[in-house]
Amino acid sequence: MENLFYAVRCASVLALAFAVIFYRQMKKEDEGTPTMRQIAQYVREGAMAYLTQQYKIVLRVFIVLAIFFAILAYGFGVQNPWVPFAFLTGGLFSGIAGFIGMKTATFASGRTANACRRSLNSGLKVAFRSGAVMGLTVVGLGLLDISLWFIILNACVTEATLAQKLVVITTTMLTFGMGASTQALFARVGGGIYTKAADVGADIVGKVESDLPEDDPRNPATIADNVGDNVGDVAGMGADLYESYCGSILSTMALGASAFYAVSPEMQMKAILAPMLIAAVGVLLSVLSIFTVRTKEGAGMSQLLKSMSFGTNLAAILSGVATFGILALVFGTGDNRWWQLSCSVLSGLIAGVVIGKATEYYTSHSYRPTQKLAESSQTGPATVIISGVGLGMLSTAIPVIAIVVAIVLSYLFAIGFDVKNMMDAANLSQGLYGVAIAAVGMLSTLGITLATDAYGPIADNAGGNAQMSELEPQVRERTDVLDALGNTTAATGKGFAIGSAALTALALLASYIEEIKIAIGRTAGALINGVDAASASILDVLEEFNVSLMNPAVLAGVFIGSMMAFLFCGLTMNAVGRAASKMVVEVRRQFREIKGILTGEGTPDYKRCVEISTKAAQYEMLLPSIIAILVPVATGVVLGVAGVLGLLIGGLGAGFVLAVFMANSGGAWDNAKKYVEEGHFGGKNSDCHHATVVGDTVGDPFKDTSGPSLNILIKLMSMVSIVMAGLTVGFHLL
Amino acid sequence: MENLFYAVRCASVLALAFAVIFYRQMKKEDEGTPTMRQIAQYVREGAMAYLTQQYKIVLRVFIVLAIFFAILAYGFGVQNPWVPFAFLTGGLFSGIAGFIGMKTATFASGRTANACRRSLNSGLKVAFRSGAVMGLTVVGLGLLDISLWFIILNACVTEATLAQKLVVITTTMLTFGMGASTQALFARVGGGIYTKAADVGADIVGKVESDLPEDDPRNPATIADNVGDNVGDVAGMGADLYESYCGSILSTMALGASAFYAVSPEMQMKAILAPMLIAAVGVLLSVLSIFTVRTKEGAGMSQLLKSMSFGTNLAAILSGVATFGILALVFGTGDNRWWQLSCSVLSGLIAGVVIGKATEYYTSHSYRPTQKLAESSQTGPATVIISGVGLGMLSTAIPVIAIVVAIVLSYLFAIGFDVKNMMDAANLSQGLYGVAIAAVGMLSTLGITLATDAYGPIADNAGGNAQMSELEPQVRERTDVLDALGNTTAATGKGFAIGSAALTALALLASYIEEIKIAIGRTAGALINGVDAASASILDVLEEFNVSLMNPAVLAGVFIGSMMAFLFCGLTMNAVGRAASKMVVEVRRQFREIKGILTGEGTPDYKRCVEISTKAAQYEMLLPSIIAILVPVATGVVLGVAGVLGLLIGGLGAGFVLAVFMANSGGAWDNAKKYVEEGHFGGKNSDCHHATVVGDTVGDPFKDTSGPSLNILIKLMSMVSIVMAGLTVGFHLL
Repeated sequence: MENLFYAVRCASVLALAFAVIFYRQMKKEDEGTPTMRQIAQYVREGAMAYLTQQYKIVLRVFIVLAIFFAILAYGFGVQNPWVPFAFLTGGLFSGIAGFIGMKTATFASGRTANACRRSLNSGLKVAFRSGAVMGLTVVGLGLLDISLWFIILNACVTEATLAQKLVVITTTMLTFGMGASTQALFARVGGGIYTKAADVGADIVGKVESDLPEDDPRNPATIADNVGDNVGDVAGMGADLYESYCGSILSTMALGASAFYAVSPEMQMKAILAPMLIAAVGVLLSVLSIFTVRTKEGAGMSQLLKSMSFGTNLAAILSGVATFGILALVFGTGDNRWWQLSCSVLSGLIAGVVIGKATEYYTSHSYRPTQKLAESSQTGPATVIISGVGLGMLSTAIPVIAIVVAIVLSYLFAIGFDVKNMMDAANLSQGLYGVAIAAVGMLSTLGITLATDAYGPIADNAGGNAQMSELEPQVRERTDVLDALGNTTAATGKGFAIGSAALTALALLASYIEEIKIAIGRTAGALINGVDAASASILDVLEEFNVSLMNPAVLAGVFIGSMMAFLFCGLTMNAVGRAASKMVVEVRRQFREIKGILTGEGTPDYKRCVEISTKAAQYEMLLPSIIAILVPVATGVVLGVAGVLGLLIGGLGAGFVLAVFMANSGGAWDNAKKYVEEGHFGGKNSDCHHATVVGDTVGDPFKDTSGPSLNILIKLMSMVSIVMAGLTVGFHLL
Repeated sequence: MENLFYAVRCASVLALAFAVIFYRQMKKEDEGTPTMRQIAQYVREGAMAYLTQQYKIVLRVFIVLAIFFAILAYGFGVQNPWVPFAFLTGGLFSGIAGFIGMKTATFASGRTANACRRSLNSGLKVAFRSGAVMGLTVVGLGLLDISLWFIILNACVTEATLAQKLVVITTTMLTFGMGASTQALFARVGGGIYTKAADVGADIVGKVESDLPEDDPRNPATIADNVGDNVGDVAGMGADLYESYCGSILSTMALGASAFYAVSPEMQMKAILAPMLIAAVGVLLSVLSIFTVRTKEGAGMSQLLKSMSFGTNLAAILSGVATFGILALVFGTGDNRWWQLSCSVLSGLIAGVVIGKATEYYTSHSYRPTQKLAESSQTGPATVIISGVGLGMLSTAIPVIAIVVAIVLSYLFAIGFDVKNMMDAANLSQGLYGVAIAAVGMLSTLGITLATDAYGPIADNAGGNAQMSELEPQVRERTDVLDALGNTTAATGKGFAIGSAALTALALLASYIEEIKIAIGRTAGALINGVDAASASILDVLEEFNVSLMNPAVLAGVFIGSMMAFLFCGLTMNAVGRAASKMVVEVRRQFREIKGILTGEGTPDYKRCVEISTKAAQYEMLLPSIIAILVPVATGVVLGVAGVLGLLIGGLGAGFVLAVFMANSGGAWDNAKKYVEEGHFGGKNSDCHHATVVGDTVGDPFKDTSGPSLNILIKLMSMVSIVMAGLTVGFHLL
């Protein structure tokens, strides 16, 4: 058992070691011509300046929250003394993951452009290996933090029994998840607003009004746009997936400790170890598969795609197979648990694949939906928007069905299909453990899926660099191929990310109830539903707090939760709208006031545009993020435990569906535009093209700001509720 | 008591009598010039032709469903024998309400245009009184059907005890509500697709591409557009509100019968009578207030608005006051119940007003949000869409908070703020009765609020008639004032409609559980949670079926419910997109092939456009409506009672918020366009104007097809579940 824990730490070190190796390899590449270096330098400086600013603001929020937690913990004793530290650490490591990813990306994009001058394969290698740096950093840091905290808390926490101690340790570690989620939300929202303000602004004045191509150096917002890709799509995504990865493992650990509380401390240990070990093996498989991604010289797009899909599919299949082995090793083959739980993991994996395929079907222009969307451009921008909204809404059906099937199956497998007693106390918590571990399975090969995701923006930026440095058109074509490929492989990644978010959020619901038990248990001799707090089941807690579906507090919570998803999106959408307007006004001003920009004789004031995006993003990210933290607390105080559970369930249901809708509408608009640009319906600069550009512009905040932030929102609200459970139990109106 | 029941029937007859009087008054008005008659005739024929077609298709669906219900009832005995008949009657009366409203509107619009030639006041009178015909028909028919069915079932149903009999009668009557909901859904979806296909098609080719004004006779889609206003905004809305009105009363009656089951049959009777009587008095007050709406000659817009608001406010305030009297009369003043329940009704009324005001704030161009939306047109159509989506999403916050407060307060008032025991069996059902009766209060003055709503499309059509008949511009200006006024007063109406839908849906949740009890009770000696079926409480049923918030079936249901709202909107949005594209292609063809249309020398082929809308609407309405009926049944069979409750709650939460979002985004886009047309940001035909026209076009299906249909969807899913409860109990996988 000790050895297996050791293996987890080894895996994390291995991941980080390979991240360093790939980083060094990338750094050895040549940065190209002086212009290329210059532009890469601009982008790097802008990105670093933004990230520094953002982290300063986030740091203040963290300090305020940590002090608040410290008061709750040390002043009122309604919280664990480790909470403030775990919270800060989670935020810190999430920030580091984003920082490293972004630093790598800003060094890599110029080098990718330069490598593309040699060949497509060289470009792929540089971009992909740099994406892998981020992928491996995220999983490496995640596993490292989790195992270190486990060791620390294991050494320091004292409780009456070992069983109780394990429950307290694992739920305390969820605070670490809350830190990661909080920082991820800021990173996603701030980065998302930054990148889309610049992108939308650049597109509207550049493409629509002045017919400039993408990334044209004459467009003053170009540098800001390229900086945006780094702070939004790279740093934001890194923090986001760090949060998802840790969240899924931590929530499974917490559920494992409580599900087997009544069985034995040994079983608890096994249940805690299982998710860590699945993740650790996933790291190994990721590293292995990363090496399989390579192309021959002169490889076409389809071969590239095959090579990359081969890598991710290989990792996923091996991980599915390995799960059976791991769980046999952990739980032993004495009873059926090992293969039953493995089937739970498989259910999750299959759901992830289905969601990914559905995403691809609805958003890739190789399929009918997006082609039809492009067709609707023949009747103008209004029908493009109507059809795109319709498409996105329809596209929610398959992912929801997939996730519903995964939830039910992973639950039923975990309890050995004991349908008749499926809601018995023991079955309930062990079934939910099955749901939670399915999410871990989905994310176990994050190392490589994130690599295929993160290399997209690197290729995108490489294209920007090539365009601005006025390299041969061939280079731009190659980076475009890489970028397009990234969009397709990213679909799979998105499927796993959103699917795992839903499953993790469910697991967190159960953890919330566990934390309620602990909060009550702090008062010595406290009873829950007439049972000693520590031995009370989930159902006891629900009954004690009148958590029934017909409780008006639950129903009120469901309404508020559904509203939160929309409110949050509304705030971020408006933020992008406002910031983009500022950018448009500025770009128009430069075209008007700086002589000769459009003829290429004058130099635009890039810096001013970078400043506008930076300021707007910092200012606008605060309100939505703070609301996300405060509403669960306020709901708890007014509506009590029942209200909070309603809030979380309503937010989960509406948030998941809304996130899929926004991501897919946005993706389809993007690719419909590309489809027209490939020569359909009149091709570039036709009326149809202009109509699809409107769609693409609208889709930008859908898919890159509001949509992905929802994943984090769903989980952050749960984690806030968990951390604040002590307060809710101590004080509530209803 | 008997006398009071008698009063309900009197009120319904009174409402219908006044409807006849107003109808005759309208018919006496002059129809104007031969051209005006001709155009009115075209629109009338088109509308009637469509309605006839639609009813034929709906009839088939009804026959199939009725046969299915008959088999369940007579073949398998899992349903009440009255179900098929009640179902058919509900559909029939809902159809009649829509038919009469539309017939009146198509006769009234030409006459309104003609009256506007005399004066604004004459126009207002004709339009408003014609709107009142629909308002009074809906409430009159609603009350008539409800009281007649109650008499019939009271005479025919036989059960062991009077108490049991009342429960069976009132839940059986919900089937009547399901009939009304089903027909309403078809009417809303079909009418909504019809009207928006024509409207969007006419706008895109007419306004955007050819710079024709609204309702220009040169636009081939103009007649179809005007027909659409009648079949969508009048017939669709009539059926919709008939359903809301009956639904709120019926669900309250059903809850009343079950909440006081354990108390006494007398109390049950009182609780059944109360909602009917509140509605009956509301009818009286509506008729009274309708007579207060009049203006002096030469009155300005603000005076008109004042006059109309005076009418609706008067009715609402009087109804609030009268409620105290009615409930004192029904329940007696021996205990606190009379004033406590009155306060529940007041909570609902206030929430309705708040939602209405919020709607007005977010969608009227007298306020900042819509003005800012108009401002965003300076940076093109993309930012108009982004800002409009953002605005709509933000605008969900106040309505949700209002409805949440109303739910909690109406519940707590009904149980005398017994917070500590708020979830005791007796308190639970009586609290939910408080929530249900709050919805009745909201809709009690529907007679007048619907009049202020329905006269809008009449004025709109009058404008169309004036334009096409080439009357003096003054006439069009007057109809525009009336139309604009209608938009503002309609905001209040919408607030009440959506607010009541949420509360009614909650009440239906409770009724579903009651129906489950009855379904189990059919097996003699059946126990629920160890208690005799008839005496089991809501909580017993929840426990028997493992309906816990952590049951994976419930969670799966919540996901499916949330998805249903989006799926349904996606289907209807796409339907409008497809139908509008066909219309655009046809109009373009006519411009190209029929010589001299644009110079006014050639006559467009109006009929062809009417046909396109008719066919498209009929074809496209089927799928979304059928899905709405089948999904609750399928969920019941697979996931059981717990899954169905999850489905309904998820659908309610996400559906309510989505409906508010879509309605408000659409309304704001509409008014932002009007704001620009009034001369801001460049006025008509400027770039800003074109950008806002794109927003308006996108908003059309948002606010008139998908958004309003959601209100019905939410309730229909509940009613289907209620009617199918027997099947679910008899057969389910989980």
